Amino acid sequence: MKSLVVGGAGFIGSHLDDALLARGDEVFCLDNFSLGTKENIRHLEGTSKFRLYEADASDMGQLDSVFKEIRPDNVFHLAANSDIQASAQQPDIEYRNTYTTTFNILACMHKYQIHSLFFASTSAVYGDKGDALLSEDTPGLEPVSYYGAAKLGSEAMISAFAHMNDMHSLIFRFPNVIGPRLTHGVIFDFIKKLRANPACLQILGDGTQTKPYIFVKDLIDAILFLVPKNTLAFDICNIGVEGSTSVRTIADMVCRSMGLKNVHYDFTGGKTGWKGDVPKFSYDLRKVHAKGWKATHTSDEAVRLTLESVLGKPGENNR
Amino acid sequence: MKSLVVGGAGFIGSHLDDALLARGDEVFCLDNFSLGTKENIRHLEGTSKFRLYEADASDMGQLDSVFKEIRPDNVFHLAANSDIQASAQQPDIEYRNTYTTTFNILACMHKYQIHSLFFASTSAVYGDKGDALLSEDTPGLEPVSYYGAAKLGSEAMISAFAHMNDMHSLIFRFPNVIGPRLTHGVIFDFIKKLRANPACLQILGDGTQTKPYIFVKDLIDAILFLVPKNTLAFDICNIGVEGSTSVRTIADMVCRSMGLKNVHYDFTGGKTGWKGDVPKFSYDLRKVHAKGWKATHTSDEAVRLTLESVLGKPGENNR
Repeated sequence: MKSLVVGGAGFIGSHLDDALLARGDEVFCLDNFSLGTKENIRHLEGTSKFRLYEADASDMGQLDSVFKEIRPDNVFHLAANSDIQASAQQPDIEYRNTYTTTFNILACMHKYQIHSLFFASTSAVYGDKGDALLSEDTPGLEPVSYYGAAKLGSEAMISAFAHMNDMHSLIFRFPNVIGPRLTHGVIFDFIKKLRANPACLQILGDGTQTKPYIFVKDLIDAILFLVPKNTLAFDICNIGVEGSTSVRTIADMVCRSMGLKNVHYDFTGGKTGWKGDVPKFSYDLRKVHAKGWKATHTSDEAVRLTLESVLGKPGENNR
Repeated sequence: MKSLVVGGAGFIGSHLDDALLARGDEVFCLDNFSLGTKENIRHLEGTSKFRLYEADASDMGQLDSVFKEIRPDNVFHLAANSDIQASAQQPDIEYRNTYTTTFNILACMHKYQIHSLFFASTSAVYGDKGDALLSEDTPGLEPVSYYGAAKLGSEAMISAFAHMNDMHSLIFRFPNVIGPRLTHGVIFDFIKKLRANPACLQILGDGTQTKPYIFVKDLIDAILFLVPKNTLAFDICNIGVEGSTSVRTIADMVCRSMGLKNVHYDFTGGKTGWKGDVPKFSYDLRKVHAKGWKATHTSDEAVRLTLESVLGKPGENNR
């Protein structure tokens, strides 16, 4: 089975490469290294069933030649600008890296008659729905970030291509994903800031922002379990975990893991961390549970496991 | 008041130009003449408050220079590939003419600090929901055409820009729009076919496709009534009429208007006219009615008025 992982050198993509290789696939990893890194896939160098293509999926010429050569059986599309804060100043990053990559991948799948797509979407498509429990049937999606907008637009275009061309597509709306090889986000930021200044930690917002965090290996497990089962042209699943974790709790856990005490928290204030941030959300997970999948780890456990993987277990001196 | 009408030489756009000039606006009409025509705006030549820009909104450089020069107060975005059948073979038309135009307009509005946007969307964003009454809160939008997908993606991007930059945006989801200056669609096609062969009419599908048709002047009336009232960052309204009209009824009305009898109908068969067509839909119009607007003409009346405007009143020999 030939699997093309677009964004395969990224944080999540590289874990997917590992899992696909472990189940015996030939894995073709395409990445432009805008957020992905060679470091993430260094351990796969020399693996006979792994091949890397340094190419930009937002460039139709480059993408087409990769599709032409590989003609994969499955496409896993994880290429995007996943750093919402970064694109808040430059929405064209989302136009190019998130939306255009999707359009180009769909056009190539249509051209080369490839029928199976997995797409990484996001809770950001819902916008800010306050305390509402978000299900796949929540109406009135109103993204407040360019990232969420480009992902929702991508979902829509996948729907059209799938219905027009008899494809099978499965879309996961990810919550926050964390774990080894993390490249940005609150845990990453806190560790970086505390390494620079262990006495004081600047926290964006008021620290009450509370979201579910999924451990990356749980997420990969869900992809491998559910993609082969999909028989629909277009299906969307919220993917998530039990519980959620506040930014303040994360700050406490990071400090503890780093062996730091009496760190002064300097809150920037306000409900949201930055413009375009959704401070709080919870998923209705009945759909994915009914499909027979459940996360192994809770949100708090995912934070703990991530800290262990990045910093080592408490007491170890590996900073 | 300076109003920029993107797609202002098109079927609907040119009627909007007329109405905006009638209320006293300075009207800046931007069109690339892909579907719009010089004929549609010929009557406005020499009007002091009307200015035409031949430019392509999918080209950021061209669009930026128009925004820089005009710095409009309001933007009305009606530029799109509105011919769903045409783009079914070439989805990149939708990527460029429908989605990219929206992104570029939003980027320019952000750059030049313009805060009021009207956007022409479509029933095609819902996909095929069978007999369900479609309201703005209908969940699970699943477009089956590239056109519907690019419009839904555009709505999402408008939401993000509006929330990020304190804009006011109003989105109408149009049903089928008909009237003078029509350039495509079932009425246009039937007249063309019957002029070529008055004895036989090929009808796509089984003729039971049934949709609401709005008369273009009703639609323009709604835009002018509702845009100035909008105080929200992002608001979506289904816009429509009482009743709906089947394709077979339209065939009968066209034949009668053209004075043709015993025309043989040759149905291509199947529920839909073409792949990507939604054969039937009905709108829940409570939201727009609650805002104080109602269409003057029913769907059947819109068809009759359109035929009169294109063919002349029954009995007149103006074919």
